[in-house]
Amino acid sequence: MLDQVHLLLDGDRRALARLLTAVENEREGVETTLAALYPHTGRAWVIGITGAPGTGKSSLVTALAKAYRTRGESVGILAVDPTSPFTGGAILGDRIRMRDLAGDKNIFIRSMATRGSLGGLSRATRDAIRVLDAAGFQRILVETVGAGQSEIDIVRAAHTTLVIEAPGLGDDVQAIKAGILEIADVLVINKADRPGVEHTARALKSMLELGHPASRVQSVNHHGQMIPTATPAINKIPDFWLPPIIRTVAIENQGVDEVVNAIETHRTHLSQAGKIEELEDQHIQIELVERLREHLLRDFFHDLPPETFAQAVAQIRARTKAPQTAVQELLALRGVNVAK
Amino acid sequence: MLDQVHLLLDGDRRALARLLTAVENEREGVETTLAALYPHTGRAWVIGITGAPGTGKSSLVTALAKAYRTRGESVGILAVDPTSPFTGGAILGDRIRMRDLAGDKNIFIRSMATRGSLGGLSRATRDAIRVLDAAGFQRILVETVGAGQSEIDIVRAAHTTLVIEAPGLGDDVQAIKAGILEIADVLVINKADRPGVEHTARALKSMLELGHPASRVQSVNHHGQMIPTATPAINKIPDFWLPPIIRTVAIENQGVDEVVNAIETHRTHLSQAGKIEELEDQHIQIELVERLREHLLRDFFHDLPPETFAQAVAQIRARTKAPQTAVQELLALRGVNVAK
Repeated sequence: MLDQVHLLLDGDRRALARLLTAVENEREGVETTLAALYPHTGRAWVIGITGAPGTGKSSLVTALAKAYRTRGESVGILAVDPTSPFTGGAILGDRIRMRDLAGDKNIFIRSMATRGSLGGLSRATRDAIRVLDAAGFQRILVETVGAGQSEIDIVRAAHTTLVIEAPGLGDDVQAIKAGILEIADVLVINKADRPGVEHTARALKSMLELGHPASRVQSVNHHGQMIPTATPAINKIPDFWLPPIIRTVAIENQGVDEVVNAIETHRTHLSQAGKIEELEDQHIQIELVERLREHLLRDFFHDLPPETFAQAVAQIRARTKAPQTAVQELLALRGVNVAK
Repeated sequence: MLDQVHLLLDGDRRALARLLTAVENEREGVETTLAALYPHTGRAWVIGITGAPGTGKSSLVTALAKAYRTRGESVGILAVDPTSPFTGGAILGDRIRMRDLAGDKNIFIRSMATRGSLGGLSRATRDAIRVLDAAGFQRILVETVGAGQSEIDIVRAAHTTLVIEAPGLGDDVQAIKAGILEIADVLVINKADRPGVEHTARALKSMLELGHPASRVQSVNHHGQMIPTATPAINKIPDFWLPPIIRTVAIENQGVDEVVNAIETHRTHLSQAGKIEELEDQHIQIELVERLREHLLRDFFHDLPPETFAQAVAQIRARTKAPQTAVQELLALRGVNVAK
């Protein structure tokens, strides 16, 4: 596998594709390869792009990739589909638009779908970002369908998060969710040549003013729980970032340079006063907690007789034992006291 | 707290509201109360309702609740908003439509939003279902925004899952996600008086024929990992459930009785040959794994010096240590060998 690392660092595209497949399939030994790659990461700027279906995310990603290429930057694209958790079959419909980008060696596109669990996809996406980073891509665009958990995962891996809206996607109160706004570093109204764009812009602006984006800051407490920090009063943060609202017509390349500029401005903003380090520390804390959680559970089940577990399930179903009690008893078998 | 249990079982609505608040806020002692309630659960039929914004979920929930009341069944409604993960502020816009239901003692409505984590919301929803179940509600409707993880959570708590679609919500390939179809026991095309309903019905039908709903069956392996079981060939399952597609205009009460009948047919289907027990075992397995995972992590961090964790984070950020290596070292401190 270490040969693969050298090939990857040398720019070998087949080694890159193979490693991404290994990451996606959680192939044996891939963790060792990723650990060997890790010192070569940390150079790329990772841009998360999310929004509801129909907002034109893929068109915008394509336009952004072209804009970065014009500026001489290499671009890795991960199109993540978390909405198909059970079969792992990504719907590639709108990926077809990205065909424009084919043939450029400095662009690499990869679709990723869930295999088994959303947690698995989140981990695979983080690892795939690192692989593209080590392979030397300077901008990594991670596109995902706007849907609860998937945006949170983007926030946990991206430096700059773009939230895409479009006019006329039904009920504003439903379409523009406060939770989505709170993760946005840059807001884009795509399809801005459509009727209703002023209305969408006003709705976004007033929701931004109502919102408290600073509440997105998270950290991990000494119990390993992820906790949102107290929302600081906005006027106490001198270098507070207010997400700009940018109008685009991605398929006609309108407004795309403004988006690129906003991303670069956000990058400059974060570069001040150790903010990137703070952001990366949060990402790392969350990653460590996720990894520890998985290993601890695996270790627990490794020594637990399957029949002990099956018996607990049967008792809970029969309502002769509450789940809370069963868990306490299972943990006590391993010397873990839940009360402490 | 045990007084609360008696009041709840006696039908006291204020005790019910208080307990739901305690569940949502993870108040101290609530686990003891839930354990005491647990023997009184298992009587309600839990119906999950999901779909994209704009499909008219809340109107359908309201219409279903009225239909059940006409049939003499009591109804608990949980409106879950998982899309606002950071502030916990539920957008109550379309809940207003449910005002029609106010004043009926045999209907209880509760909105729930995320506080801190999606995992927390999932647990709170499961607990709230049990509280409503113990309080004697015969049908529990759990409504959530159609969005990746939130549907999965519904499947893990519901007996029957309804997926709501509507004509004209943009690109079909994007709006009708394979993953959403796979969790559906009953498909509803609401707003069926709109143009495009035939197109939506055809699209759903062909996606159903392509899909393998049997793949939704999940179980937990002996490592505590959730694994989808192998997809069985459809023709080998004599009692295979093919989700019906039902057209409704919920605000005019059209098609609502058909939906109620489909839910009851699904219930009868599951009652055959131990299928309910199988479903409940899956739900319980998943719940136990989630609870164990949380306790194990908490126990791990309880004894870990915070500076040890902080040092690992700093080394990872500096790229002097890979996350994989740091995790192995942290686990080794507690005698956990990741290799086994």
